Amino acid sequence: MMKLYNFSAGPSVIDHSVLEIAAREMCNYKGTGLSVMELSHRGQLFQEIIQGAEEQVRRLLSVPEDYSVLFLQGGATLQFSMIPLNLHVHGSKCGYIDTGVWSTKAIRHASQIVSDWEVETLASSRDDSYRFIPDWSPSSLDENLSYVHVTTNNTIYGTRYLEPLDIGDVPLVADMSSCIFSEPIDVSRYGLIYAGAQKNLGPAGLTIVIVRRSLLGRSACRDGLSDIMSYQAHDKASSCLNTPPCYSVYIASLVLNWLESQGGLVEMKKRNEKKANYLYSFIDSSSFYVSHVEKKNRSLMNVPFTLSNDQLTNQFLLEAEEVGLLNLKGHRSTGGIRASIYNALPFEGVKRLVDFMESFSKK
Amino acid sequence: MMKLYNFSAGPSVIDHSVLEIAAREMCNYKGTGLSVMELSHRGQLFQEIIQGAEEQVRRLLSVPEDYSVLFLQGGATLQFSMIPLNLHVHGSKCGYIDTGVWSTKAIRHASQIVSDWEVETLASSRDDSYRFIPDWSPSSLDENLSYVHVTTNNTIYGTRYLEPLDIGDVPLVADMSSCIFSEPIDVSRYGLIYAGAQKNLGPAGLTIVIVRRSLLGRSACRDGLSDIMSYQAHDKASSCLNTPPCYSVYIASLVLNWLESQGGLVEMKKRNEKKANYLYSFIDSSSFYVSHVEKKNRSLMNVPFTLSNDQLTNQFLLEAEEVGLLNLKGHRSTGGIRASIYNALPFEGVKRLVDFMESFSKK
Repeated sequence: MMKLYNFSAGPSVIDHSVLEIAAREMCNYKGTGLSVMELSHRGQLFQEIIQGAEEQVRRLLSVPEDYSVLFLQGGATLQFSMIPLNLHVHGSKCGYIDTGVWSTKAIRHASQIVSDWEVETLASSRDDSYRFIPDWSPSSLDENLSYVHVTTNNTIYGTRYLEPLDIGDVPLVADMSSCIFSEPIDVSRYGLIYAGAQKNLGPAGLTIVIVRRSLLGRSACRDGLSDIMSYQAHDKASSCLNTPPCYSVYIASLVLNWLESQGGLVEMKKRNEKKANYLYSFIDSSSFYVSHVEKKNRSLMNVPFTLSNDQLTNQFLLEAEEVGLLNLKGHRSTGGIRASIYNALPFEGVKRLVDFMESFSKK
Repeated sequence: MMKLYNFSAGPSVIDHSVLEIAAREMCNYKGTGLSVMELSHRGQLFQEIIQGAEEQVRRLLSVPEDYSVLFLQGGATLQFSMIPLNLHVHGSKCGYIDTGVWSTKAIRHASQIVSDWEVETLASSRDDSYRFIPDWSPSSLDENLSYVHVTTNNTIYGTRYLEPLDIGDVPLVADMSSCIFSEPIDVSRYGLIYAGAQKNLGPAGLTIVIVRRSLLGRSACRDGLSDIMSYQAHDKASSCLNTPPCYSVYIASLVLNWLESQGGLVEMKKRNEKKANYLYSFIDSSSFYVSHVEKKNRSLMNVPFTLSNDQLTNQFLLEAEEVGLLNLKGHRSTGGIRASIYNALPFEGVKRLVDFMESFSKK
């Protein structure tokens, strides 16, 4: 069978070895005769899975002890509401840097939770089609912000922050859905990190939240904050406030095993840089393909580019699929091509893509 | 290998044929070379899965056309918040019938969302250890209720409503987490039905909501209601407002296939009654095992009973496990034994349990 490479932006490629273990254990987990889906979430077997996954996250990201690691549901989109509900301080504003569709959604949801005037867009690159991360540094006026929210990697536009924004004592809140576990990060620079699992961590339906515990008292008496929306309640219950998405946690634990077996995040960064550099170098050397992203903000995970017209783009997608290069279509809001090259997409896949791009451009 | 029977209250038993299909398709769904976990949720393949699952739910439960069927995340517990957020009408109260731990949680969460005085417990069997469903019928005063909430099957205490509560034009809201798909129901009698998937529908991490669309306008201008918490927003987006829990939806679709292949809910009801009657008859004929539930309210799904002391109970659990009768321990709040006999638990399992109970009682 032809080797396939899945460039989907998410849900996205999972290493085949992980899927093989999942298939093998589906009907009989560790000799129990049961599937992981059939295990009680309060039982020892599942508790070992979820506690093990937490330890793996802590090891891989060197999470400081005063941070809570939570496995939640609802996707990054539910976090757009939980963040202002839990972290907004009465009388202050929630600050957002707008770097694309996902930032815009985070801003809109925050405005639905707190009052409009309590949400402030501090900077935006919208007028430049989100081709870069806007410069912004805090003034003394901004010391009263509840937090500043950034989207560290922008899946649709292919931009990213290279360093955490320096905002002093104001908590930095980061949506890392499409870049978490792609390279080492300094968790202590962030107040809260969140990510939907469906890029580098496993199946959709699981969201990871890493939050500094000292921030969790803020919401203690807030009206309209029910337990299920409270980080503090989830932290106290060790992510088992209600039945967690057990099977997704299990798959995530297999993905984290795989990450560790491959050499962890230092190795991932090396591989991801190699893949991205190879692809960007080819695009830069070509006049047939155009990248619109400012070079200093180029994403390691998502590489969008365009051809000169829609007809060529469609032809490219069709022929790519025929040779096993799948899901290269750009986001419906931008069009063009997008190659998502997450952890589990091997260098060989990028090489095959570049070979195809080269031969397609020559025709 | 010894045949195992899993009496877990949830996550619970899934028919083996479903797990076998899942294992077989894990690495190669329908010849694509991809796992369902790797499919884009906007792509045709996954859209066929989720739309197919919706059609199956509509067929099996004869859902009227003016009802929306939603696949959400967050468990029944997130519904405890979404229900008052979406259905509470300013100036009226939200009514609750308290039949156990889960009703109590629904009431507490509602009080966190709206004001304390806007939540009213209309009846409770708490003082009688929740051994029955309390009688309650509405007075003219209650016509101003936003809704009345019931837990139709009480997993912990083994009680259930046999008929939908008759409350005229006030919308009836029902938590059916532990009994949905166990027998036919008349959906038109309810304003909203919700259920966590992890009993009769598949893996934890998926919640089904069936709601009369005419109720969804109520929350249009509500403060604090963000899109991700709005049924109307989910309905407009056909359960793809954000990435749904794709793999759980896929497993649910396999479980729904299995349900239809077995003869649907009429057949399920027959089987479930046969299983429950067999077990209750034996308990009633024994003086060694005691059921504390009022006979008229006995659950078809969860059968709790006690032995005379804790030492015997522990011995029972130990020996049951040795002969492959798993997860019979009662809920931590009540102790004792609980046999959960959901759709996928076959009659042979109940027979084996009764045989074991008989021989254990004779020793």
